[in-house]
Amino acid sequence: MTRTDGRNNHQMRPVTITRGINKHAEGSVLIEVGDTKVICTATVEDRLPGWRKIEGGGGWVTAEYGMLPRSTGSRMIRESVRGKPNGRSLEIQRLIGRALRSVTDLAALGEKSITLDCDVIQADGGTRTASITGAFIALVDALQWLIEHKRLDHIPLRDFVAATSVGRVNGEIVLDLNYTEDSQAEVDMNIVMTGNGEFVEIQGTGEEASFSRVEANGMLDLAQQGIKDLIEYQKQVLGQIANNIGR
Amino acid sequence: MTRTDGRNNHQMRPVTITRGINKHAEGSVLIEVGDTKVICTATVEDRLPGWRKIEGGGGWVTAEYGMLPRSTGSRMIRESVRGKPNGRSLEIQRLIGRALRSVTDLAALGEKSITLDCDVIQADGGTRTASITGAFIALVDALQWLIEHKRLDHIPLRDFVAATSVGRVNGEIVLDLNYTEDSQAEVDMNIVMTGNGEFVEIQGTGEEASFSRVEANGMLDLAQQGIKDLIEYQKQVLGQIANNIGR
Amino acid sequence: MTRTDGRNNHQMRPVTITRGINKHAEGSVLIEVGDTKVICTATVEDRLPGWRKIEGGGGWVTAEYGMLPRSTGSRMIRESVRGKPNGRSLEIQRLIGRALRSVTDLAALGEKSITLDCDVIQADGGTRTASITGAFIALVDALQWLIEHKRLDHIPLRDFVAATSVGRVNGEIVLDLNYTEDSQAEVDMNIVMTGNGEFVEIQGTGEEASFSRVEANGMLDLAQQGIKDLIEYQKQVLGQIANNIGR
Amino acid sequence: MTRTDGRNNHQMRPVTITRGINKHAEGSVLIEVGDTKVICTATVEDRLPGWRKIEGGGGWVTAEYGMLPRSTGSRMIRESVRGKPNGRSLEIQRLIGRALRSVTDLAALGEKSITLDCDVIQADGGTRTASITGAFIALVDALQWLIEHKRLDHIPLRDFVAATSVGRVNGEIVLDLNYTEDSQAEVDMNIVMTGNGEFVEIQGTGEEASFSRVEANGMLDLAQQGIKDLIEYQKQVLGQIANNIGR
Amino acid sequence: MTRTDGRNNHQMRPVTITRGINKHAEGSVLIEVGDTKVICTATVEDRLPGWRKIEGGGGWVTAEYGMLPRSTGSRMIRESVRGKPNGRSLEIQRLIGRALRSVTDLAALGEKSITLDCDVIQADGGTRTASITGAFIALVDALQWLIEHKRLDHIPLRDFVAATSVGRVNGEIVLDLNYTEDSQAEVDMNIVMTGNGEFVEIQGTGEEASFSRVEANGMLDLAQQGIKDLIEYQKQVLGQIANNIGR
Amino acid sequence: MTRTDGRNNHQMRPVTITRGINKHAEGSVLIEVGDTKVICTATVEDRLPGWRKIEGGGGWVTAEYGMLPRSTGSRMIRESVRGKPNGRSLEIQRLIGRALRSVTDLAALGEKSITLDCDVIQADGGTRTASITGAFIALVDALQWLIEHKRLDHIPLRDFVAATSVGRVNGEIVLDLNYTEDSQAEVDMNIVMTGNGEFVEIQGTGEEASFSRVEANGMLDLAQQGIKDLIEYQKQVLGQIANNIGR
Repeated sequence: MTRTDGRNNHQMRPVTITRGINKHAEGSVLIEVGDTKVICTATVEDRLPGWRKIEGGGGWVTAEYGMLPRSTGSRMIRESVRGKPNGRSLEIQRLIGRALRSVTDLAALGEKSITLDCDVIQADGGTRTASITGAFIALVDALQWLIEHKRLDHIPLRDFVAATSVGRVNGEIVLDLNYTEDSQAEVDMNIVMTGNGEFVEIQGTGEEASFSRVEANGMLDLAQQGIKDLIEYQKQVLGQIANNIGR
Repeated sequence: MTRTDGRNNHQMRPVTITRGINKHAEGSVLIEVGDTKVICTATVEDRLPGWRKIEGGGGWVTAEYGMLPRSTGSRMIRESVRGKPNGRSLEIQRLIGRALRSVTDLAALGEKSITLDCDVIQADGGTRTASITGAFIALVDALQWLIEHKRLDHIPLRDFVAATSVGRVNGEIVLDLNYTEDSQAEVDMNIVMTGNGEFVEIQGTGEEASFSRVEANGMLDLAQQGIKDLIEYQKQVLGQIANNIGR
Repeated sequence: MTRTDGRNNHQMRPVTITRGINKHAEGSVLIEVGDTKVICTATVEDRLPGWRKIEGGGGWVTAEYGMLPRSTGSRMIRESVRGKPNGRSLEIQRLIGRALRSVTDLAALGEKSITLDCDVIQADGGTRTASITGAFIALVDALQWLIEHKRLDHIPLRDFVAATSVGRVNGEIVLDLNYTEDSQAEVDMNIVMTGNGEFVEIQGTGEEASFSRVEANGMLDLAQQGIKDLIEYQKQVLGQIANNIGR
Repeated sequence: MTRTDGRNNHQMRPVTITRGINKHAEGSVLIEVGDTKVICTATVEDRLPGWRKIEGGGGWVTAEYGMLPRSTGSRMIRESVRGKPNGRSLEIQRLIGRALRSVTDLAALGEKSITLDCDVIQADGGTRTASITGAFIALVDALQWLIEHKRLDHIPLRDFVAATSVGRVNGEIVLDLNYTEDSQAEVDMNIVMTGNGEFVEIQGTGEEASFSRVEANGMLDLAQQGIKDLIEYQKQVLGQIANNIGR
Repeated sequence: MTRTDGRNNHQMRPVTITRGINKHAEGSVLIEVGDTKVICTATVEDRLPGWRKIEGGGGWVTAEYGMLPRSTGSRMIRESVRGKPNGRSLEIQRLIGRALRSVTDLAALGEKSITLDCDVIQADGGTRTASITGAFIALVDALQWLIEHKRLDHIPLRDFVAATSVGRVNGEIVLDLNYTEDSQAEVDMNIVMTGNGEFVEIQGTGEEASFSRVEANGMLDLAQQGIKDLIEYQKQVLGQIANNIGR
Repeated sequence: MTRTDGRNNHQMRPVTITRGINKHAEGSVLIEVGDTKVICTATVEDRLPGWRKIEGGGGWVTAEYGMLPRSTGSRMIRESVRGKPNGRSLEIQRLIGRALRSVTDLAALGEKSITLDCDVIQADGGTRTASITGAFIALVDALQWLIEHKRLDHIPLRDFVAATSVGRVNGEIVLDLNYTEDSQAEVDMNIVMTGNGEFVEIQGTGEEASFSRVEANGMLDLAQQGIKDLIEYQKQVLGQIANNIGR
């Protein structure tokens, strides 16, 4: 069966990452995965959250996620108007933060915090995984900026990290679901992996449905391949700097 | 290696479910998993959320999750005082709701909504999975109440559902983490499964760490066994009524 | 006239206080007054509210009150969802705090604050007075814990304190109203008294009705007797420790 | 002992009620009790709160209470800035509403709601009791306005209502406490009474202190006399209209 | 054409400023412009907002604006109930603050902040401009209070400041619009000017309409004349103190 | 004197408007004015705000304004986290809405509302005026979309509208201030004008300073010229469609 946009089941949408799209931020990218477009900016600050200072352990990397009101098919209420954070957004930004911290040497970062803002300009499925893949590049650029400003002497990242979604749509296992597929999916799985092929997150959910161990394995296989390709692309985008990660 | 509470790695803590602990609610249980204690009440209402009415598809099952301020080692700010919902609570209650809906025939439920309130009285790790396992029984009792009040003619559940946690603690794969283990875990995985052995949710997270495919498989194996036992216990707790589920 | 639950007008419902029901809290009880069930936990902290530090005068004792969503006949909106504290809850927790402070030697307590969380698990009238009666025991246990941990050398309580409700229902003066009576009462009075028979609070309210001086006197007489019995029971529950109060 | 402002213990401060101070409101007064100044406006609306419509029983009378930021000695945070209602304000406005409803024939009012806004312009103790005494006059004027506009044929009030405070200050029982006395009081009691000498509310509170039955009686005696005088003054202020109340 | 209240187009409503109307505030006035009545109080505090302390530059003068719920023809929701500040109020209080700061020598004020609370008791158009004109006098009185308490040696004001509105109503340019005119105006302009005839603010707005350069000039001419008269009146109200401003 | 970015005082920064940048919205543009970048999307909905339906008068055009957290030099708190709208944002979005409505024939629009979301991606001064100039084009495109979908038969706009800022910086009158100039400006004026050269808004503000009538005239002159050029550019961007406006 061909997918609605003509891809085969194992095929990811075209991915583009444009660096340096914000003159103020220490790191910034626009990531496009098909029609999904997310601006990721990294902000370096010389202070830590209170609890982190008490707890110790070095720096902190965190994320915030938002959607512009008309990033979706029908306009959503602006988050500042709702007056309270949205459960889905909170869940996503916690995921992005964990993903980035899983490859960061926080002790080596020192008393700094880096906030990754992931703002969805246009949504077409997979905004959280695109945010992770893009935010990683913005984080690298912010760390590189710290090196250039003599505030770090190496990039405190142990590895690359990227993410994609897999799922079961009409009984078939497919890679990188777009919005139409996502809303029809019986099973939806978001996977975050590092450059050495290990998992950071497996978030698989049956939508009023369940899935077998065999299907779980099929989805993990597909995600592993997709993320391997994404990390290849991240390396290409970073060029020379890529060599300084995981040293 | 023996675990802090003397269990072996494949051993779950003692589980007790007490039914009928609230005279107002249509279904209610106290579930105890080791020192974790959660009150789950089911409330039946003859109205649907606005969006559900528009969307159609029958009834609705949802959950809310909270913790008493002193359910934990140090007192937390009361949620009504924070003035806004807590990201972690929202994430958990969305999980509980999805788990219960995965086995419910919402069309057969008809124009009713059932809300499962899961309130943690005392926390010692695994509150979200205990909530799912306990809320399922409260849901069954509420459905049974509807049958007794002639508002349903059968229990609209396709299967049982229960949940447990697994993780990697000090490099070892263990079942049903208590709080001490949970706070030391390198990997933490919450699994929701149905009576027929299928997955509803796999939520595996590396805590500033990652995990291999082999470890993922080990954790899924362990969870499958644990949940099988939990569902056996649910059947025992429900007695005769258990036979009317999945018919 | 016999009351709906068969009691005579001067009769209180059965009262049970179970101590030590939470392994984390420095003091904790479950108080049951008929079908009203409240969990009271005491949390000791080594810090004072900012204003108290400025004002001086020693330690601080305060309370917070909440109801589980399905503690009542029909489910209430969860307080964290309302996003703002409920007027009734604020009023009640201010009452509980004042009642406990009226018998506490705050200067002798020193730079510590004790928070009594009163969470209603099941409501059937009289939750605020049950909270006071139960929270007093949790407070004693927390103070005893401080003695055992060598942080106090005596219990800084001048006296016992307990509370009950009285009211006029169908023209008759009755003690300890249950929910049905409370919702029909023309007059509702909550009374807090100390062990030496003095009043801490008299909160009498006509519900779209008024009451005479003679009726006021009748209600105060009845409450005095009821609270005397409650304090007898508190002493029995505390056993040996009771002798150390008011020294 | 003479009081700080030279009054004897049984003496109330001068009371002035000025009617018609707001051209928009259906009823409005400025009440001054010593240096305490409260604007009370009555707003008539042809709609009921949702719950009241369902419950039935006729019209509704309610109150809201606020303080201007600099009504007090040191400036308070503006309530709209706090973003949430203040516990004390909620408690007071519930009291004012109950007091007014205790003498109102809500059934005769019909499908209308009347909101009494009590805004404290300058505070010097007793703002809640002044609000009740003043709001009653604003309510009468709004009801009279309804009669003049042919929307009522009589004033649906069964009686007058007014309020004052009494307390124990330095061991002496005094009437109508000003701010200085209130902040030193060991016992503070707010009393609401009707024209026929019955109580609507008795709110007596020991401030880290308790009080005997004899003292309670002394305070009630004093309040009864004070409120009798206040109601005399209300009658004088209303002139001819006073005769139409309680018919 | 005569205006609804009989004024000619160049005529302002009667203005009255009453000083010293609040015993707590360091400066306070009631300003009446026709039926518009605003209480302005000035609060002196010996602390600065955090950002101001960091930024330096001396003291701070700011304003807050509110309306009593029934200051208008139909009752508005109380701001503390809305739970969030109202856009219009925020806009107005920013305007009042800027107007006052434009004539204040903040460096000379030293480490003090003065907050002007402008609370509308009764609204009939022009509440923001009345607030500015009145708040200026309250500010002068608070500064004079600082001199009397030996905390300033001169009034740190460079000039007077006052404000009025002009507009185009039914095609005619008019001064000082009342509520009826304001709601029919095609163009509405608020002007703030200093004693030396310079502008501090020009806020001209077409209401679903636009206006020509010639009309703009006509409105500015009219406002200049009106504000000149207002400042004359301010001088008269302040008497001797007026001579100490702008020295 | 040359300006920091080399422009002369009468020179505007380069302006670019890119249409159709969002696949979901009925109209969308990216407007760039120097380094200021704003995404403007227009959302058409077939429902009106409640008050508008009651009031009548046809359709409604409104705006919302937001800034991404890192659109500025230092990261701002995300608006959804602040939990309440920001005074400045509310003020700006009211301005944008009024500007667009001033040229819209709301009656001809019929029972539709159009919301213009203006989200600042990168800020360098003049975000509110860029929002107006860009939102006008997004509005035209949404109206054109309605024509193409046979829901309108002509563009219900009476004229073009655009906006720019002028100000006094170091004593000189300059056009189109960038952020550096804006933060040093003694006077800041935002002007909105229509295609026929009339004003919709004049918002001139002295920043702890005042300005003369002569300076006001100089700023208005400069703004008139700048806006004339902007409207020329708008026409060029719209091409053929421009001819259908104001018919």
